[in-house]
Amino acid sequence: MRILVVNPNTTASMTEKIGQAARAVAAPGTEIIALDPDHGPVSVEGHYDGAFCLPGLLQCVRRGEAEGFDGFVVACFDDPGIGACREVASGPVVGICEAAMVAAAMLGNSFSVVTTLPRSIPVIEELAHRYGMERRLRRVRAAAIPVLDLEEESAAAAAKVQTEVERAIAEDRAEVVILGCAGMADLAASLSQRTGVPVIDGVGAAVKLVEALVGLGLRTSKVGGYATPLPKRYAGDLARHAFGSHDRN
Amino acid sequence: MRILVVNPNTTASMTEKIGQAARAVAAPGTEIIALDPDHGPVSVEGHYDGAFCLPGLLQCVRRGEAEGFDGFVVACFDDPGIGACREVASGPVVGICEAAMVAAAMLGNSFSVVTTLPRSIPVIEELAHRYGMERRLRRVRAAAIPVLDLEEESAAAAAKVQTEVERAIAEDRAEVVILGCAGMADLAASLSQRTGVPVIDGVGAAVKLVEALVGLGLRTSKVGGYATPLPKRYAGDLARHAFGSHDRN
Amino acid sequence: MRILVVNPNTTASMTEKIGQAARAVAAPGTEIIALDPDHGPVSVEGHYDGAFCLPGLLQCVRRGEAEGFDGFVVACFDDPGIGACREVASGPVVGICEAAMVAAAMLGNSFSVVTTLPRSIPVIEELAHRYGMERRLRRVRAAAIPVLDLEEESAAAAAKVQTEVERAIAEDRAEVVILGCAGMADLAASLSQRTGVPVIDGVGAAVKLVEALVGLGLRTSKVGGYATPLPKRYAGDLARHAFGSHDRN
Amino acid sequence: MRILVVNPNTTASMTEKIGQAARAVAAPGTEIIALDPDHGPVSVEGHYDGAFCLPGLLQCVRRGEAEGFDGFVVACFDDPGIGACREVASGPVVGICEAAMVAAAMLGNSFSVVTTLPRSIPVIEELAHRYGMERRLRRVRAAAIPVLDLEEESAAAAAKVQTEVERAIAEDRAEVVILGCAGMADLAASLSQRTGVPVIDGVGAAVKLVEALVGLGLRTSKVGGYATPLPKRYAGDLARHAFGSHDRN
Amino acid sequence: MRILVVNPNTTASMTEKIGQAARAVAAPGTEIIALDPDHGPVSVEGHYDGAFCLPGLLQCVRRGEAEGFDGFVVACFDDPGIGACREVASGPVVGICEAAMVAAAMLGNSFSVVTTLPRSIPVIEELAHRYGMERRLRRVRAAAIPVLDLEEESAAAAAKVQTEVERAIAEDRAEVVILGCAGMADLAASLSQRTGVPVIDGVGAAVKLVEALVGLGLRTSKVGGYATPLPKRYAGDLARHAFGSHDRN
Amino acid sequence: MRILVVNPNTTASMTEKIGQAARAVAAPGTEIIALDPDHGPVSVEGHYDGAFCLPGLLQCVRRGEAEGFDGFVVACFDDPGIGACREVASGPVVGICEAAMVAAAMLGNSFSVVTTLPRSIPVIEELAHRYGMERRLRRVRAAAIPVLDLEEESAAAAAKVQTEVERAIAEDRAEVVILGCAGMADLAASLSQRTGVPVIDGVGAAVKLVEALVGLGLRTSKVGGYATPLPKRYAGDLARHAFGSHDRN
Repeated sequence: MRILVVNPNTTASMTEKIGQAARAVAAPGTEIIALDPDHGPVSVEGHYDGAFCLPGLLQCVRRGEAEGFDGFVVACFDDPGIGACREVASGPVVGICEAAMVAAAMLGNSFSVVTTLPRSIPVIEELAHRYGMERRLRRVRAAAIPVLDLEEESAAAAAKVQTEVERAIAEDRAEVVILGCAGMADLAASLSQRTGVPVIDGVGAAVKLVEALVGLGLRTSKVGGYATPLPKRYAGDLARHAFGSHDRN
Repeated sequence: MRILVVNPNTTASMTEKIGQAARAVAAPGTEIIALDPDHGPVSVEGHYDGAFCLPGLLQCVRRGEAEGFDGFVVACFDDPGIGACREVASGPVVGICEAAMVAAAMLGNSFSVVTTLPRSIPVIEELAHRYGMERRLRRVRAAAIPVLDLEEESAAAAAKVQTEVERAIAEDRAEVVILGCAGMADLAASLSQRTGVPVIDGVGAAVKLVEALVGLGLRTSKVGGYATPLPKRYAGDLARHAFGSHDRN
Repeated sequence: MRILVVNPNTTASMTEKIGQAARAVAAPGTEIIALDPDHGPVSVEGHYDGAFCLPGLLQCVRRGEAEGFDGFVVACFDDPGIGACREVASGPVVGICEAAMVAAAMLGNSFSVVTTLPRSIPVIEELAHRYGMERRLRRVRAAAIPVLDLEEESAAAAAKVQTEVERAIAEDRAEVVILGCAGMADLAASLSQRTGVPVIDGVGAAVKLVEALVGLGLRTSKVGGYATPLPKRYAGDLARHAFGSHDRN
Repeated sequence: MRILVVNPNTTASMTEKIGQAARAVAAPGTEIIALDPDHGPVSVEGHYDGAFCLPGLLQCVRRGEAEGFDGFVVACFDDPGIGACREVASGPVVGICEAAMVAAAMLGNSFSVVTTLPRSIPVIEELAHRYGMERRLRRVRAAAIPVLDLEEESAAAAAKVQTEVERAIAEDRAEVVILGCAGMADLAASLSQRTGVPVIDGVGAAVKLVEALVGLGLRTSKVGGYATPLPKRYAGDLARHAFGSHDRN
Repeated sequence: MRILVVNPNTTASMTEKIGQAARAVAAPGTEIIALDPDHGPVSVEGHYDGAFCLPGLLQCVRRGEAEGFDGFVVACFDDPGIGACREVASGPVVGICEAAMVAAAMLGNSFSVVTTLPRSIPVIEELAHRYGMERRLRRVRAAAIPVLDLEEESAAAAAKVQTEVERAIAEDRAEVVILGCAGMADLAASLSQRTGVPVIDGVGAAVKLVEALVGLGLRTSKVGGYATPLPKRYAGDLARHAFGSHDRN
Repeated sequence: MRILVVNPNTTASMTEKIGQAARAVAAPGTEIIALDPDHGPVSVEGHYDGAFCLPGLLQCVRRGEAEGFDGFVVACFDDPGIGACREVASGPVVGICEAAMVAAAMLGNSFSVVTTLPRSIPVIEELAHRYGMERRLRRVRAAAIPVLDLEEESAAAAAKVQTEVERAIAEDRAEVVILGCAGMADLAASLSQRTGVPVIDGVGAAVKLVEALVGLGLRTSKVGGYATPLPKRYAGDLARHAFGSHDRN
């Protein structure tokens, strides 16, 4: 099985880390390719960045689809463009926020999320609402670190993440804690061990859920909202992204 | 007051119609500029198109912001990129789906939506859920017409829309009907008259809501999820969209 | 366009203030008439007062309807009698709580409400639930001031309101704050300016929403729950309020 | 124990029927007084009537409170004025819609409601939402009979009610059926017997719930939204309804 | 009327206390039999205990059904096995959590629950969600006392319960407080008196609700999810619990 | 990795089929042991059966835990005893209903469930509500076949299942269909193929989700509602199920 893990931002060191996290949990027969687009934001912090990661993300997924990848992970905790990815993919597409919440809900009655910046809090609250998880979500906590700090000065950043994880357990009475940024993927295992509480990284969770769905022989439903895009003209410098008749299945 | 109405697709005839609908309801002192991007899909039918309308849409809104527009309407019923637009705009940004649902909820206890293609049904159901309107939404009905058919063969398309509007009233017991595509903007008034039931066009509704918010002196909140984008580098051919230090306010 | 703004209590100074707030935001072509009933409670604080403001409120709206007013604002934050007003009005009827919440939801992801007395908290929580806004409502805060204190000793009362607005921003992480009493209408603009966060007065918001709906040519739906009252006899000293055959439309 | 059952409309024959239904289920030690106001609508069909039944309803409850009644039933399926009644009553106040839904939820997993006119459907749907019962509510069905027809030509009206009850069981798969009008109180027992499915009359249900709460020694909470009304002046011909200092407890 | 109150644990002193609480509120004509099973856990603290109280509980209810009891109370705040009990009972079956929440919702706008151990908090939160009461539930508080401590060292345990009740009123702004364990049944009345706020014991509440439903002549619906169990073989040492053909009605 | 798949009923042929379905999807390194208890109902149809499958189910899980199984599947679509199983297991425990719904939600926007008997419909609706999936659940359809018919006369039963699957796609507009009984596990693949729509078997889905969670190194959270049972005495013939001091971890 081949899974394409797309980091929707263009920071290679983060893609590297994401790839490692993905490979660390992948089953023996699973090949992980971690990719980032050649255009777009160096990090996704808010809706505007989220919008501009989509062309690169979708280009990656379409290439993966053409190359016959079995499934796809979108490795950004805002779950950007999941619906669009599902339209162009035959196999399953899983976002890391949805994956982490689904895993958390099977391990405990409630969870908190520790994310990077306060501006991401409402985004994640809205995803919880969309996924039917608002009842289980105790609180979204921001560690107040820019995404790329997780790449550079990881000691300080990691300490801030740990502090919020511990407060989630003590103050929110969360039974599970989710790390709300793909850039935190390397911290989950040690935080689980240190706290004795399940601390979930969405990248790993999403890889395993894609493996699960592919292993079940299931593919994205094409009879409703995730039907293959209709062929049509895209104007201007987005023309090359248009879905043509050769894409139809 | 100057309101920028962005048609996120690149079909000029539709932008024209949207502009007319906007101007038809605008207050005397309101100047309406209707715009479409120079790149992107000719129509938005599903998530993939929705993703690729964003660069053009956001470019339009950023230009509008630079030119001092007071408020913005996003004239596509999927309400694409509203959060991102709100991050870059000082003034209010209103999507036509949210606007239509808000208007409907003040005129009746329930509403149905008549949209174009079946693939849009789950998108609109999810928007209703996001806006807290699922209790009032009786049903989303697809007239089974591609968006651009509303441009070309309007008689046949209009008849299909009318049939679904009438079924919404008779079968769904909807007290209000919403037209779920900017391309239907010209049909609302005559359908209201014919059926005796309020039939709402989102373009007009959004223009009036922007007028209302601007008239109240209110601007988009910048202390949370709609804070101004952080300046950062965008790689590749999206580099020109990056939010730079000169954009900060 | 003529809009009737009914203050459902009988305190003339408050009606005066409400009228000023309404006129301050009304469009050039809009004529605002602010009215209070000649019978009923001097302030609405709780359900009992809310019940007894209805005869006067409805009498005002019926007179307004007879005189051809285009739309109606009910200027009490408990949104009393909205359904009944919608039954007797042809044009739109908007309550100030619903209006403020609708406006807030387009400017931020969350809001808190600052009201007068603690006894009003559950009333407003229930309205948020009814309007599908409970997910956005962070908290209802009581400034612990009787409604009429807002008329008499405004400095002290205004200071208490300001304190709660600031706590809503700091403690509730609300992106928008709503003033939960028509008597606070004069405080919104200065509080917006002082805090840098949108602070919404429902009176202004409702006036602009009525303008919007009237400007769209939309009227209250008469095919369901807001159908015109059935003509029937009312016994005793309420007989004059009965809906007679001459009222039918 | 003395329970005051207030029929909020002024039709004596209906009060008679309600009183009989109440007495038919009351415990041996319970004294039922069924009352209707001397002013107000002859039937409550919609919000406008609902508003004008309140002065009479509240006058009855206040008199009952002064005379030391232990609890109160509001015998109109729209549950009008419950919050206001709870403010003025020391003992429990139960509305017949809430009572019927509570009873239904303990006897089956789902229920439908059969009411009189279509205009009442959204009112009852909103009550179900308020009471947390929307998940159990299969459908509100209107038998298309004016309330007072239940008084006059009961055979025809009863047949229509029966038809809708049977459709609720067969088509809605409702496990319980609720009769959605106090005027149907006499039909519940025979419909239960005929269909083999619990058919609930709200009047009886409310009487038994008041008995239950009084029997538990519980009274309406006075520390929040149902606190005793504040003494204040009521202007004009509602002055006599004002809550004065002599009412305080 | 004869009501069987089953304490699903096997601690006789607690059954005694439950029986007293039940008899203290029962109507003159009501005979209360309080029973505990001869097998199963001495207290129910968590899901595992909850599972193993079911055989005994159901055996008791089936015996009660065979002996013609009119209704049943399940006297454990986790409401274990309510659905199963309803399948085997003709008369109404009420759990003490549901009963307490239903009573609370008619006396105030909100409530908090004071339970024994923190592990019970998610169980009760889920019950509130199931019963449509999550909007009214302010908080579940654990007094941090094992269930059986309520039997032995009641002074210390009662003090802890009282502390949490007072915090529920002061900190949660709960209008009503529910005691979340059958073993606290004896504390409700004095806490109501001391705090001036309704404090509800679920045992009493359930008894009165069963009396209410039986008094209405209503029985559990047998046309859906609570239909009589199908006769079938049970293997091994549970064989005697199998529902046989002689049980059918 | 070793996964224990417990069929909570005692029908060996069904356990056989479940084991085959589990092994068919298990990863190479996964060892599946399918087990049924030596006591309890031959099929689970309703709450009463569901209660009596618990002692056997929990005994199996406790044995599995003692033998060091890494994770557990509860192979009955009512998800009986999941909370209790999670208390006694260190590794993850997944029910087949939750697993199927989680998988469905990542492959489509909506799903319907095809189950055996009508009496199971409310059980599954309630599970959807508990899991936050009610918005995606279009309808639960009963094929009107007893569980054990799926064992004996599979051709006729399979035809009935197929009919309902096809109606779910055509009439409910479900994008995914879930088979709502472990006894249907063998039908999913061929129905997926025949309809072109993902048809999900919960047994396979649960096995893959357990593999996923175990592969992530995650275990059930022990700090809240799934904490290890407290040691205590169980009376009578359930004594051997008591959680003793030797079980503590």
